[in-house]
Amino acid sequence: MDDEVSERLRIDPAFALHRGGKMEIAATVPVRDRDDLSLAYTPGVAKVCTAIAEQPELADEFTWTSNVVAVVTDGTAVLGLGDIGPRASMPVMEGKAILFKQFGGVDAVPITLDTTDPDEIVDTVVRIAPSFGGINLEDISAPRCFEIENRLKDLLDIPVFHDDQHGTAVVTLAALRNAARLTNRSLGELRAVISGAGAAGVAIARILVEAGIGDVAVTDRKGVVHDGRTDLTDVKRELASFTNKGGLTGTLDEALDGADVFIGVSGGTVAEDAVASMAKGCMIFAMANPDPEIHPDVAHKYAAVVATGRSDFPNQINNVLAFPGIFAGALHVRASRITEGMKIAAAEALAAVVADELSADLVIPSPFDPRVAPAVREAVAAAARAEGVARR
Amino acid sequence: MDDEVSERLRIDPAFALHRGGKMEIAATVPVRDRDDLSLAYTPGVAKVCTAIAEQPELADEFTWTSNVVAVVTDGTAVLGLGDIGPRASMPVMEGKAILFKQFGGVDAVPITLDTTDPDEIVDTVVRIAPSFGGINLEDISAPRCFEIENRLKDLLDIPVFHDDQHGTAVVTLAALRNAARLTNRSLGELRAVISGAGAAGVAIARILVEAGIGDVAVTDRKGVVHDGRTDLTDVKRELASFTNKGGLTGTLDEALDGADVFIGVSGGTVAEDAVASMAKGCMIFAMANPDPEIHPDVAHKYAAVVATGRSDFPNQINNVLAFPGIFAGALHVRASRITEGMKIAAAEALAAVVADELSADLVIPSPFDPRVAPAVREAVAAAARAEGVARR
Repeated sequence: MDDEVSERLRIDPAFALHRGGKMEIAATVPVRDRDDLSLAYTPGVAKVCTAIAEQPELADEFTWTSNVVAVVTDGTAVLGLGDIGPRASMPVMEGKAILFKQFGGVDAVPITLDTTDPDEIVDTVVRIAPSFGGINLEDISAPRCFEIENRLKDLLDIPVFHDDQHGTAVVTLAALRNAARLTNRSLGELRAVISGAGAAGVAIARILVEAGIGDVAVTDRKGVVHDGRTDLTDVKRELASFTNKGGLTGTLDEALDGADVFIGVSGGTVAEDAVASMAKGCMIFAMANPDPEIHPDVAHKYAAVVATGRSDFPNQINNVLAFPGIFAGALHVRASRITEGMKIAAAEALAAVVADELSADLVIPSPFDPRVAPAVREAVAAAARAEGVARR
Repeated sequence: MDDEVSERLRIDPAFALHRGGKMEIAATVPVRDRDDLSLAYTPGVAKVCTAIAEQPELADEFTWTSNVVAVVTDGTAVLGLGDIGPRASMPVMEGKAILFKQFGGVDAVPITLDTTDPDEIVDTVVRIAPSFGGINLEDISAPRCFEIENRLKDLLDIPVFHDDQHGTAVVTLAALRNAARLTNRSLGELRAVISGAGAAGVAIARILVEAGIGDVAVTDRKGVVHDGRTDLTDVKRELASFTNKGGLTGTLDEALDGADVFIGVSGGTVAEDAVASMAKGCMIFAMANPDPEIHPDVAHKYAAVVATGRSDFPNQINNVLAFPGIFAGALHVRASRITEGMKIAAAEALAAVVADELSADLVIPSPFDPRVAPAVREAVAAAARAEGVARR
């Protein structure tokens, strides 16, 4: 490595912090002497193994499995960096793992895969699944992410959750619910336009429709996704089937005319003219990182509520508000899956945290609000029980 | 669960200790506030990812990968319990993981596999390999364990080590070296008989021959493994090709007549008459657990040195003396594999720890001797460098 690079790695605070990685394994039982060893390892451990062999559900109580999530990626859609491969994605997966622990008390292990083939990813995750209580899929590019998640959900009886889809969708719905509350509107009277038909866009569309948003249209690079188009993938064809009640067929800019809500998860930009054409008191969630689709300063000229994906503006739509509590709740009750109802319950609980202190700059809590994870955890656990997917 | 079982689980100290598992994930960097988050996660993490994408070897420095080992099992040969499956094997794998950390400072993650097919095991481990700095195979039954290890060694450029084979072999060689020293004999003049041609027996035979033991014969249920037999598996046929210089063809008892060393890794028993027929000043390593092939009290009537696999007798042949230091040394220098030379160096370093205090009851250190892991680590790292498999 040349001296300049080496010097940069030495002094840059991000590199200094990452040296040696960001996580480790710790024992929760002592191994100080022969007696400890004979309980935690042979011969004592044999009794526990035998009991689990006879009664498999005892693994939930007497191993760490039921509190540990695999954070699985193939490194194909990492942050805004794209396909950087499994090795280069590890710092993000480690970051995710420590957020799971810090915010949800959930243990998480990064698994970065040396394959991008959906069949191989599915096979691999199924084979390692007995080691884990849940599977968090991360930064897997669309449309493969949809197929992989759906197949794994069918094959496994533990929660499988693609955070880029559902984490984003839950937090977006929470913020939208509070923004509607703040501006005295019901969800049913809102017309929303989502720019971006990738992982996040599809999941947001689904949860908004499920939660009762009046109309939701999704746009990709060619404009509104509608069932008259002949260029749609399977996923977009399905999207067209349950969105766009208003029958729009034009561009994103045209779709925004009179819309109440803009949700940007595309990384593109929106012209100020189009923003100006939105309904009075509109809501703009420009979530692309690091460059929002509409700069918040511009958005504020037209919107009642503005949210972004950035930590240096108010109302950050940050997945860390959702995934730690969602998994903590699902694992706590040994849920066999994470249902739509559990996600909506998570969004409602998240919104409720700041319901009594709403303002245009506070429709969603801060990631460091200590009320968030417990509230989401309880709501998700209760929803899992109500929906019959809890095993305790 | 009935009340009696439930009561047993509540009061048995092994179950009490295992409740909730024995390990957890811990962050090694703070996530207290927005600034921490922006370094450990987005946007700061993106710089580290980008640097690794450009220079893949930086993953060794800026992720936890280079210090983390996967402890991989299919649950087919767990302790003396046999094929109990992936879920029931987890307590052993967690135990192994905490021993890795406690004794070697190595992070380890249990991966229990929902397949026993060698092709599927190999494929799965190859695909998850970018997440790890090494692979410790554990409790996979013979003869599949040989094929799986060999194929993984060929396919991966990180250490792959089946501990049931090589850990046991290293500790056995160390004890034998000290026993020979204590009784003033050279390794070259010893004739050894190994009872058991499974994972441990095959690896012990290999390392003893490699280390220069005069003659080594291995027996299975049908007697000495020799090249006149027509019932041999591929592994045993190879074993016959480099063992049994003396051309034995009989039973275990016959083979012991005049032998200097007995090594039991079979779980069977040996009659006292056969033991009595061994050479004067012989060495008996009866390592079956919990019931040694020859009870130590009986063995002591005939042998100069007696070792077992049990912690309640002197000279315990315990793998924990080897695997933490071996992996710590290999990972420290980023070894691409663990060579025969590195294993022999580990055995010599392990023997040397107690070389100045040798007695019939001390030919191998205690697992809690703090000198062990550092000595093994240094020796393995030096051997890796000497053999050209170190990458730093």
